[in-house]
Amino acid sequence: MRTRVGIVGAGPAGLLLAHLLAAEGIDVVVLERRSRAHCESRIRAGVLEQATADTLTAAGVGDRMRAEGHVHHGIELRFGGEGHRIAFDELVPGRAITVYGQQEVVKDLIAANLANGVDLRFEVEGITLGGIDGEPHLQWAGGRLDCDFIAGCDGFHGVSRASVPAGRLTAYEKTYPFAWLGVLAAVAPSAPELVYSASDRGFSLHSMRSDTVSRFYLQVPPETRPEDWSAAAIWDELKARHETVPGFTLATGPVMSVDVAAMRSFVAEPMRFGRLLLAGDAAHIVPPTGAKGLNLAVADVRVLARALGEYYRSGREDLLDAYSATCLERVWRAQHFSWWMTTLLHRFADADAYDRRLQRAHLDYVARSRAQATALAENYVGPPYEG
Amino acid sequence: MRTRVGIVGAGPAGLLLAHLLAAEGIDVVVLERRSRAHCESRIRAGVLEQATADTLTAAGVGDRMRAEGHVHHGIELRFGGEGHRIAFDELVPGRAITVYGQQEVVKDLIAANLANGVDLRFEVEGITLGGIDGEPHLQWAGGRLDCDFIAGCDGFHGVSRASVPAGRLTAYEKTYPFAWLGVLAAVAPSAPELVYSASDRGFSLHSMRSDTVSRFYLQVPPETRPEDWSAAAIWDELKARHETVPGFTLATGPVMSVDVAAMRSFVAEPMRFGRLLLAGDAAHIVPPTGAKGLNLAVADVRVLARALGEYYRSGREDLLDAYSATCLERVWRAQHFSWWMTTLLHRFADADAYDRRLQRAHLDYVARSRAQATALAENYVGPPYEG
Repeated sequence: MRTRVGIVGAGPAGLLLAHLLAAEGIDVVVLERRSRAHCESRIRAGVLEQATADTLTAAGVGDRMRAEGHVHHGIELRFGGEGHRIAFDELVPGRAITVYGQQEVVKDLIAANLANGVDLRFEVEGITLGGIDGEPHLQWAGGRLDCDFIAGCDGFHGVSRASVPAGRLTAYEKTYPFAWLGVLAAVAPSAPELVYSASDRGFSLHSMRSDTVSRFYLQVPPETRPEDWSAAAIWDELKARHETVPGFTLATGPVMSVDVAAMRSFVAEPMRFGRLLLAGDAAHIVPPTGAKGLNLAVADVRVLARALGEYYRSGREDLLDAYSATCLERVWRAQHFSWWMTTLLHRFADADAYDRRLQRAHLDYVARSRAQATALAENYVGPPYEG
Repeated sequence: MRTRVGIVGAGPAGLLLAHLLAAEGIDVVVLERRSRAHCESRIRAGVLEQATADTLTAAGVGDRMRAEGHVHHGIELRFGGEGHRIAFDELVPGRAITVYGQQEVVKDLIAANLANGVDLRFEVEGITLGGIDGEPHLQWAGGRLDCDFIAGCDGFHGVSRASVPAGRLTAYEKTYPFAWLGVLAAVAPSAPELVYSASDRGFSLHSMRSDTVSRFYLQVPPETRPEDWSAAAIWDELKARHETVPGFTLATGPVMSVDVAAMRSFVAEPMRFGRLLLAGDAAHIVPPTGAKGLNLAVADVRVLARALGEYYRSGREDLLDAYSATCLERVWRAQHFSWWMTTLLHRFADADAYDRRLQRAHLDYVARSRAQATALAENYVGPPYEG
């Protein structure tokens, strides 16, 4: 079997790439080791940058997002007994975020690809990559796919990046001494916008998925397991970290799921090796504080689809050659922003009294300085794409 | 002997306080353990915030500063082979810095105080503070001064803060794993504005005192002694760290003096204990990267002079009671900014590859984002005084 672009992974990156390439008439095959149901139900991010929402709309897969997602024009930073709104509508006029779950994006992309007749294969076991510096091919239990390029869109733990010979990629990595406990609950949001709460008990985020489903995160020790937290303990802690301003009551309800996410920063450079092109989490990871993971994946794919489109139209490889450098500029901006948000808002066990006062002075500054708040806002809604 | 306010220390804080209080007819005595010549020749900071320059002008001690100082409307950040101007005139219109050496400010203040008949005493040995929680007095070898208040303006190593009973002040402190080698040289500046250069060899600052005298700083190991560096080694290193952009040549000349400054952050709270009021370096220290030390001292003294003026006019103590909290807001802003500039620009020996890329991403962002550059600029020129 032969195709032009073999795509490993049916997350947002792989699915959007398949959709964009298919729209240009470029044959692709998508191989995914998990089931479709798994891909469509995996709870991940839920904040789309302006450019991400625009990209999905332009690609014709934004109808449900626009109908069911919620456009937010600000977030709240809560600390020191007060809430401070970062007002996107004032600070970065015309740019906003759309709150829409990643698994909904995945559903929309799967549906669009299937409608277009794209060859999407789930539950493909034992995928391996071969010939990535020459004649690339994908093999799996009972199959082989020869292709011009392989797009590695299979996440941080995937096989794609691991297939690059040792010493050919440079890895940059940072881990944080805490994790996030993620909680999905059947309860209406208690605030109209996301609330980033930096409390003495640790960081907590109030988010939402719909008018009836809320999403929360709690900073927890890194070794935490979901079963360590009862629903009662979750609500107690969420209340303790969020009910820190007068008049705010956190509504509670049935807990639907609990998960734990590690907090890690990672970049592998370059994002291309021979005929293998890495995109999204396969190439870089950010801690979720800045809500950048899904957005970076979409940004990568947009650049990659253009580069492959140009290659198949004209034979020119210059955009492919520039792919890694083009993406990495945005990647490192997001790396810095994600680190900045993480250190601004979390409680660090090894912080001394000076460090804690410095952190508070920093928070006060973000709340008081229009310039610093604008810096936060422009990163949060995301920079516009170049070109 | 009796006076209203006994001032310990004839640096900028003590001298400006004496000048401002004397102008309101409040009797003061200033005691300084060093000689007048020493105070007038000690090389320190040289960047005055807009509000500092305005304060000196309003106090009638700004004539020479305005005639001989240089108003700068920007600074350069140099890294990655390029220079990036932080243009105060565009980013924070109407606010600028004045480059004028601290020892010149001291000369002007000593002259003004002497002209006004203020009792300034140099070379006073063995000063001790007594009765600071009730009936304050200063004693020294062969003298005693009773007063209503003592103003502790004798710097980080002075006797004033050390006189507060143990456990009554909370100290917040951070040290940095490097020092600054300060170099005064008889050579015209090689650039019209300050150049903050973040190179792979470490940080370096190009500054100036006049059209014929330049001031440089080199990040060096903390244990460095001035005699470790020959003039030839200094110029070699300054050239290596500054001649990183096309067409820039660092002019060299005779080295006039070499000194080493520790890099430390420190705050003691509160800044008042009973009848003792701490101001300037006696209460807080910042690393010099943000050029905030002298400016914070002037800001403290302005608040203190108003509070004491109000007390002697009306007997009201509310401004004195608020003195510490009023000052500390600005102090912590400057603490954060100074830490931020220091970590942005210096090379940290313990930084790993990720940290270095993050630092570069941060520098790139400051250079490219108007919002982040404005945040730098508004801190560098200094916030306006409140009230």
